[in-house]
Amino acid sequence: MSTSHSVKIAVLGASGYTGGELLRLIAAHPQMELVVATADKSVGASLPSLFPSLASVLPGLTLESVDIESIIKRADAVFLALPHTKSLASVAAFLKAGKHVVDLSADYRLKNAAEYERWYDTPHTHQDLLKEAVYGLPELYRQDIQKTKLVASPGCYPTAAILQLAPLIAGGLVDPRSIVIDAKSGVSGAGRSPALTYHFPEAHESLEAYKIGQHRHIPEIEQELRLLGSRSGQNVKTASRNDPTIHVMFTPHLVPMNRGILSTAYCRLQEPMEQAQLRALYRDFYKGERFIRFAEGDASPNPRHVRGANFCDLNVFLDQRAGWVVTVAALDNLIKGAAGQALQAMNLMLGFPEEMGLTGAGVFP
Amino acid sequence: MSTSHSVKIAVLGASGYTGGELLRLIAAHPQMELVVATADKSVGASLPSLFPSLASVLPGLTLESVDIESIIKRADAVFLALPHTKSLASVAAFLKAGKHVVDLSADYRLKNAAEYERWYDTPHTHQDLLKEAVYGLPELYRQDIQKTKLVASPGCYPTAAILQLAPLIAGGLVDPRSIVIDAKSGVSGAGRSPALTYHFPEAHESLEAYKIGQHRHIPEIEQELRLLGSRSGQNVKTASRNDPTIHVMFTPHLVPMNRGILSTAYCRLQEPMEQAQLRALYRDFYKGERFIRFAEGDASPNPRHVRGANFCDLNVFLDQRAGWVVTVAALDNLIKGAAGQALQAMNLMLGFPEEMGLTGAGVFP
Amino acid sequence: MSTSHSVKIAVLGASGYTGGELLRLIAAHPQMELVVATADKSVGASLPSLFPSLASVLPGLTLESVDIESIIKRADAVFLALPHTKSLASVAAFLKAGKHVVDLSADYRLKNAAEYERWYDTPHTHQDLLKEAVYGLPELYRQDIQKTKLVASPGCYPTAAILQLAPLIAGGLVDPRSIVIDAKSGVSGAGRSPALTYHFPEAHESLEAYKIGQHRHIPEIEQELRLLGSRSGQNVKTASRNDPTIHVMFTPHLVPMNRGILSTAYCRLQEPMEQAQLRALYRDFYKGERFIRFAEGDASPNPRHVRGANFCDLNVFLDQRAGWVVTVAALDNLIKGAAGQALQAMNLMLGFPEEMGLTGAGVFP
Amino acid sequence: MSTSHSVKIAVLGASGYTGGELLRLIAAHPQMELVVATADKSVGASLPSLFPSLASVLPGLTLESVDIESIIKRADAVFLALPHTKSLASVAAFLKAGKHVVDLSADYRLKNAAEYERWYDTPHTHQDLLKEAVYGLPELYRQDIQKTKLVASPGCYPTAAILQLAPLIAGGLVDPRSIVIDAKSGVSGAGRSPALTYHFPEAHESLEAYKIGQHRHIPEIEQELRLLGSRSGQNVKTASRNDPTIHVMFTPHLVPMNRGILSTAYCRLQEPMEQAQLRALYRDFYKGERFIRFAEGDASPNPRHVRGANFCDLNVFLDQRAGWVVTVAALDNLIKGAAGQALQAMNLMLGFPEEMGLTGAGVFP
Repeated sequence: MSTSHSVKIAVLGASGYTGGELLRLIAAHPQMELVVATADKSVGASLPSLFPSLASVLPGLTLESVDIESIIKRADAVFLALPHTKSLASVAAFLKAGKHVVDLSADYRLKNAAEYERWYDTPHTHQDLLKEAVYGLPELYRQDIQKTKLVASPGCYPTAAILQLAPLIAGGLVDPRSIVIDAKSGVSGAGRSPALTYHFPEAHESLEAYKIGQHRHIPEIEQELRLLGSRSGQNVKTASRNDPTIHVMFTPHLVPMNRGILSTAYCRLQEPMEQAQLRALYRDFYKGERFIRFAEGDASPNPRHVRGANFCDLNVFLDQRAGWVVTVAALDNLIKGAAGQALQAMNLMLGFPEEMGLTGAGVFP
Repeated sequence: MSTSHSVKIAVLGASGYTGGELLRLIAAHPQMELVVATADKSVGASLPSLFPSLASVLPGLTLESVDIESIIKRADAVFLALPHTKSLASVAAFLKAGKHVVDLSADYRLKNAAEYERWYDTPHTHQDLLKEAVYGLPELYRQDIQKTKLVASPGCYPTAAILQLAPLIAGGLVDPRSIVIDAKSGVSGAGRSPALTYHFPEAHESLEAYKIGQHRHIPEIEQELRLLGSRSGQNVKTASRNDPTIHVMFTPHLVPMNRGILSTAYCRLQEPMEQAQLRALYRDFYKGERFIRFAEGDASPNPRHVRGANFCDLNVFLDQRAGWVVTVAALDNLIKGAAGQALQAMNLMLGFPEEMGLTGAGVFP
Repeated sequence: MSTSHSVKIAVLGASGYTGGELLRLIAAHPQMELVVATADKSVGASLPSLFPSLASVLPGLTLESVDIESIIKRADAVFLALPHTKSLASVAAFLKAGKHVVDLSADYRLKNAAEYERWYDTPHTHQDLLKEAVYGLPELYRQDIQKTKLVASPGCYPTAAILQLAPLIAGGLVDPRSIVIDAKSGVSGAGRSPALTYHFPEAHESLEAYKIGQHRHIPEIEQELRLLGSRSGQNVKTASRNDPTIHVMFTPHLVPMNRGILSTAYCRLQEPMEQAQLRALYRDFYKGERFIRFAEGDASPNPRHVRGANFCDLNVFLDQRAGWVVTVAALDNLIKGAAGQALQAMNLMLGFPEEMGLTGAGVFP
Repeated sequence: MSTSHSVKIAVLGASGYTGGELLRLIAAHPQMELVVATADKSVGASLPSLFPSLASVLPGLTLESVDIESIIKRADAVFLALPHTKSLASVAAFLKAGKHVVDLSADYRLKNAAEYERWYDTPHTHQDLLKEAVYGLPELYRQDIQKTKLVASPGCYPTAAILQLAPLIAGGLVDPRSIVIDAKSGVSGAGRSPALTYHFPEAHESLEAYKIGQHRHIPEIEQELRLLGSRSGQNVKTASRNDPTIHVMFTPHLVPMNRGILSTAYCRLQEPMEQAQLRALYRDFYKGERFIRFAEGDASPNPRHVRGANFCDLNVFLDQRAGWVVTVAALDNLIKGAAGQALQAMNLMLGFPEEMGLTGAGVFP
């Protein structure tokens, strides 16, 4: 499981679903060794008592509380899978100590601290670090990730939304006020804390929208789409007197399955395109990307094909009759939407092959 | 179960899920008596052998093949739950014999026979009856239904889509090219015939879009929204040089649950409105409607609250930031989306109270 | 919903799943009117805020705290759906005031107070009432229920286990130490309080045994089977030196579905029987019972056929090769296993037809 | 994916769920290279068209029909995941050509050809090979597997049942007529061919027993338990006049989940034991076994902890009150119950470390 050349890894927030997937992926990684796992509410518990699935797979660690100094001494690199606002100070301390850090919270994702404060209702205490933080989408920021020590790993919904819209936005092809993202998530996306909404008999045979137009993932989707759009000069081309900026109508839904996101995004084109052009645009944009796959023909991506795997499956459709482009993205919210993408970025930061420990296929059915 | 005053009922296509729900509802209806049930592939089988849930609840009928003459002799009113194109001739025969008919197929829903032929790839052999057929949405066509003998009962998706958009469209408030309907259905919506897509291990922990922009329910949604719009004079008000007509971008999804539709519809307003105005508009439009309910506050409707019941639950949201109205509708695809709505229309045709046999609450959880 | 002749009903503990089903059934009952609903944690809330499925179906009540005196003034009959040990005193007060009471907790089910105290870890404060309390299984105690004012409604597992074994035990046909009951329940059986075990991602794609040989439903199963056995003289016939008494090996399992119990019971016969004899024994024993149905041929009962309905579906099998009888029972844990059975008993106590308000078929699929 | 030292692998019957899992495991195996995949009904199709989850993970093979001579030329070792009776001749041909063969059908599992013919209704055409075939349960037959070229890989139910009972049976501790096995399987155990029973709306919110006492896995369970019992001299010790042989009462159930078996086995002991003794017996028996794990304390094993992994999780309980031992086993029917166990055996035959390619943890949740 570990060798003398392994990088020593700490996982903060190891008791949730994302934490558990980080542990599973690290256990299978040929160059990483788990040395610290923290979980405030489960200090002293063995890892298998929280994750019987990991019994006999992981070293015999017990969960610790967060002790930054101790972790700095023992670990070379750190994953933080803590609730939003809880990473702000820890990240700074680890960076100061020279560690490689992947933060899976939202704390360093938004470049604009005021946006952070508006959506997360809390002041951003370490704004100086925002310029160092790289948004951890390797398909868009591979070289930046290789050079930084702080990756702000994207949320699960934004990973799907940005990847599915990037080729169109980067091409300056979209009416910036026409974007509707209707996203559907399995229940693990809501975390591991029991609540009535996620109580089995409430969530099974159940389906609902929530936080319509108000989900905290909206600002990072818009930030990244605007950046893509501005690179392409889109906002200039499409400027109108009223508001040239990309806004997205984003509605998440809770779907009765454990894992997976299916994101259906709709937009209107500035100029007509053919279906074949659209598909070619997407294939070119993601050429050589190991973790982006295209569904065959008119097939819809489906989270069942990426369960436990780091892929984002895409397809793009043209409804000429109604005048819309539809893109569909599927990913595993805990892998490409969380732990897998974080590991992908850590591999890049540490100089390992990007796909190391992430090559497994999805578990189907 | 039956009295001497009961109306004698025939159900054609009784072996599918919609047929089964018709049987269940008729069994509980105080003024209806089931006298004929047909199912081509199950002739001679007892009803409980197809639906053990109905054992001891229904009379001891066996399934028959369709014999129009015999049915005309025995039944006063007929429900047809046959595949599309299979009702064309039978409906005509029953009407000629003076029966009350509710057809649950698409065969008499579209007023424009050319549209039917385009979407269903078959000639419409009884176009003369299209003017008699009333689209069986009692909330919009109550008086017409009371006067006709032929009701074309709406599809499950259109019921949700039309009811959730009607107040806005009838008010002439919507940009007619901005409508996106992202609908999600439980698997019973696909019928009772086994196929790989609906095989449990494929459909469970699974989620996908299908027939994007190509689903056969699109033309009836557009027909009804355009009729609502034209009544309101909307198309005049909103006419542009290019195309004044309402088009909808409609994408259905298959969700891992047995029953239920959740339909999330997006549109842009012609003029700004406030959230409170929007809600008032909806409440006024559906005032007195027994089977339309509004979710409390910002809650999303959810099919879990209408399972087995004839309600359509609605809510409407305004995303002022992004400039969209979002409406969410939930219904049971087999009840308000099929058997219940058909019974509601039959009640109206027969002069019974509209809600007779349909007053039960949903089975939760 | 109510008439001047209606019996006024109070439901204590109305916010849980059993409480919700009581409300739903009472709303549809032609001779009952809900006048009080209590829920300690939701005082002041409207019923639809807890059960949106019941919106517009129930009268506009708000939830109250339990005020015995006030309830006595307003209600004629009381259902108590409170946690175990919480009904002891209230039941006594309602009885004293002359009310008809159905208690759905375990508090008055065990005839032997010492057994109650052993399994429930609490003294039984009202042992004098145990002789008045009738175990509310109408198929076994119909006449007693008609004469009493206190019914102790059975647990969900015992209803299945007792009904599936009664014909064999009453016939004195079973080796009393050979009984194994392997029961499987949907998650609603665990109640509506969130906990990690019932958190959707933990309970979905999940299956486990629990409380093996230690479940609190064991003593009532054994009490009733022993009573059945003693009536038949079985214990005399089968007496051995060591222990003539019936003991059951009972293992419950948690299954990823909302509702339903499937109970598979195994036993060895004292003397060989034929399959046909077995089936005849069962059909005779339950002759005329409206809520007992037999699956056709070799079909297994399945909770999907009784969802929302008051039936207990049974079948019995003989494995001559291995020497065992297997009986399979399916019921809806919230209906025949709780609210429906309670209403069935209340109907009997109040002199209504036993099946009033309970004639609906199950909602399938 | 492959190196010059890789063993070239053929998979026959690659289009089903077990075939798909073989492909996934082989893709991740450091010393195996997939060179042939057959599927009669999908000849010419690409692997990703059948398993989109495997897109970009597997080499660009297309599915072939079975051509024994061609396969012999190209492959070094063969997995057969064909329906029962379809492997008989092919296995013989591959063996004659010197290949290593793991047959996942029942064709070579039963030592007694007459038993095979009785349970599978077909003559056994290659009885001479039965003595070469090793029952592929490495925990019981490790050394035999290392020496043979033909492994008959066990069924999913028998793997659980045999592993959970082996320590007791091998110790001669069990009343041989007291064994009841109540097994529960996810729907993928029924294969990938659509049928009404496995149609999503029928199988979801559904639970039933099937083939009670008649399942074809019974004879291999009894064969292996008897062999274990005879080694221990149990049958002598426990002989009675009537029938000394182990018979099992085996009832499988279909549970609404994709994957996983939970097997609950009941038996009575010949002599009393303590809980601690029992647990020690199990831990000793499986000491050093990498793929056998014990649940902590009184926890039940649960298939959710082994999803996609090769573990069989066990626990054993004593109900002194009722006089029974209960053992609970959980495994993934497609991994330890099929593809993983087959690979484990192939590793042994080929001289690789037994766990190669099988060390991943389960995917939770």
